[in-house]
Amino acid sequence: MAKVKLGIIGLGQQGGAYGNFIKEARVSNMEIGAICDNDPEKKKRADEEFSGVPFYDNYIDMLESGNVDAIVTCVPHYLHPEMGIEALKRDVHALLEKPAGVYTKQVKEINDFAATKPNLTYAIMFNQRTNELYRKVKEIIDNGGEIGTIRRTNWLITTWWRPQGYYDAGSWRATWDGEGGGVLVNQAPHQIDLLQWICGMPEKVYTKAQYGYQRNIPVEDDVTTILDYGNGATGVFITCTHDIMGTDRLEIHGDKGKIVVVDSKKVTIKRLHTPEKEMSDKMSMQEVAKLFQGEGPGSIYQEEVLEFESVWGGGQHVAVLENFAANIIDNTPLIAPGSDGINGVELANAMHLSSWLNKEVSLPIDEELYLEELNRRRNQEKES
Amino acid sequence: MAKVKLGIIGLGQQGGAYGNFIKEARVSNMEIGAICDNDPEKKKRADEEFSGVPFYDNYIDMLESGNVDAIVTCVPHYLHPEMGIEALKRDVHALLEKPAGVYTKQVKEINDFAATKPNLTYAIMFNQRTNELYRKVKEIIDNGGEIGTIRRTNWLITTWWRPQGYYDAGSWRATWDGEGGGVLVNQAPHQIDLLQWICGMPEKVYTKAQYGYQRNIPVEDDVTTILDYGNGATGVFITCTHDIMGTDRLEIHGDKGKIVVVDSKKVTIKRLHTPEKEMSDKMSMQEVAKLFQGEGPGSIYQEEVLEFESVWGGGQHVAVLENFAANIIDNTPLIAPGSDGINGVELANAMHLSSWLNKEVSLPIDEELYLEELNRRRNQEKES
Repeated sequence: MAKVKLGIIGLGQQGGAYGNFIKEARVSNMEIGAICDNDPEKKKRADEEFSGVPFYDNYIDMLESGNVDAIVTCVPHYLHPEMGIEALKRDVHALLEKPAGVYTKQVKEINDFAATKPNLTYAIMFNQRTNELYRKVKEIIDNGGEIGTIRRTNWLITTWWRPQGYYDAGSWRATWDGEGGGVLVNQAPHQIDLLQWICGMPEKVYTKAQYGYQRNIPVEDDVTTILDYGNGATGVFITCTHDIMGTDRLEIHGDKGKIVVVDSKKVTIKRLHTPEKEMSDKMSMQEVAKLFQGEGPGSIYQEEVLEFESVWGGGQHVAVLENFAANIIDNTPLIAPGSDGINGVELANAMHLSSWLNKEVSLPIDEELYLEELNRRRNQEKES
Repeated sequence: MAKVKLGIIGLGQQGGAYGNFIKEARVSNMEIGAICDNDPEKKKRADEEFSGVPFYDNYIDMLESGNVDAIVTCVPHYLHPEMGIEALKRDVHALLEKPAGVYTKQVKEINDFAATKPNLTYAIMFNQRTNELYRKVKEIIDNGGEIGTIRRTNWLITTWWRPQGYYDAGSWRATWDGEGGGVLVNQAPHQIDLLQWICGMPEKVYTKAQYGYQRNIPVEDDVTTILDYGNGATGVFITCTHDIMGTDRLEIHGDKGKIVVVDSKKVTIKRLHTPEKEMSDKMSMQEVAKLFQGEGPGSIYQEEVLEFESVWGGGQHVAVLENFAANIIDNTPLIAPGSDGINGVELANAMHLSSWLNKEVSLPIDEELYLEELNRRRNQEKES
């Protein structure tokens, strides 16, 4: 297979962007096999922008047409798992848009099914995993010798500002039935995945979420979560869509050092010469007083500052598309295996559930209870 | 009264420092009336450093000696309220060291009693309230036109590093019976008071605290709290004593702007030209896209950066002592009225209680339950 023939399901903003990347030959190992959308208006767009590419109004027909080796699911989140399963069933490789689904139960279904098809490629569009900055941070954390065991994580990520007009532009947007949530499901999945990818999954979470706090929406526009990693280490994750001068600051405190990332562009890494525990056990109060006098404790660590270009554009998506195709062609390791997608969904679900119950919840959460509570909100929304 | 004659109860580190400030004539309107300590060793120190000053080994005797107009309580926290009451009973003015006490029930007692003695001065040593930086931040918040109604507060204050040797230096230190807690009672009361002084009291708190996490102590050395202000606004307060490269970063997000304080030295104030709600309601997605392209939303706010000298030294304590004396002499308004002290104790108690019960608690807390849970820990400690 020289080039993977991709079937794009959903010709909206994201699907159109991927189509254009491929059309512009930015994805070296891919071509557009077919496009599918159930909106007749989109057929016109496809004819204009992607003339000559087969168009389907039913994705099953596309899967069975022989025109596509693989698909990408640029459709509402609820549909990602079932479309992925239908593809894999027909030996078509599947790249899921993030989040992998709305609730863990449906994501487990595709993960379980994908496990029975080990020869097929199943991946997820976690484009931020290609970000050089976060790859560097993960490398440092994975190499425990650098900043040691994590004691605290802290991500204040409130740069997801969205005006009311954004929400009003689509009736499915920021609804329980259309998206299954707000900022946790639509905007913050990037950072939720990065956090768990870099620092691991917590054992428990407690969340305070505000629903329709600063926007006229039924879902959450403001979230504060405490993460408990189970070994004494804790974390905080904060996000919202109403801070027009939002903050993006990630701090990871380890027993041998600290990493601070500001604006996803600048990383400051401080590596202690001696592990903190050893300093605590050995230092006299005289030495402590001396240390904190004058210029402060600069002598006890080595500081490294790295600056990166912020890459939030198409480059990341192109890289994931290319990596997906490369895995199909020659088993190049995946940047984001599809089975990883459940972690972000699990975390977002846990945050919702904790805020609904107003108590700390353990992971994995009670997935039946979550679905019941979610469906109750979907039904209430339909009735109102 | 030309100068207030101060009785210093407890000639430890703090009592000795205050004595020296007065001896060095740094407190213009005060003189040392007497010193009291129940440790015979301290009599020697008093004779050497403060020769000629009357010394008592019983504070009641000192209160009744006629040698003092006022006292300051440089003794373990549990004793502050009762010593304050005994002073006020004898028409002696009282300056309490912070915290005002260990549990709200005892602090209420002194507040109630002090209310019956309106002609006496009752104050508390919140020296950080004299810090020009925080006075400026409070002024901005109080003037609602500047950054508007608060939506979020966030204080990561982990600069309270203490080595094991610090804890081992006194058997009462960081114990339930000696101090009534750890970082919340000994180190963080500064910021807990500043936070409530500047941003107001929350209605509810949820706290995750680690007891003896990185230090061999029975009390908390690591705390993460979510504050709920009751109107949708929320906050996070994080502190610990095991981060040798600790962070001090306060962010206050309002509906018209934002304040960020770094290292208690540098304040960045961003004031929006238009309230955020109005921008959200009126901006089209085209305008939004334009705004976030290129240099980002710099055009929508005016930025002011202020730098301050960090004053953590004696200057602050001198200012509070002088203000206390001035209030006695000519009713100069107090920087920190004694009755304010209960807020910080209430918050610290609520954080403990929430972490013990592992659930969110409402303020005011159930003070009987708190005392019961505290005393249980004091008894367990004595038995072990």
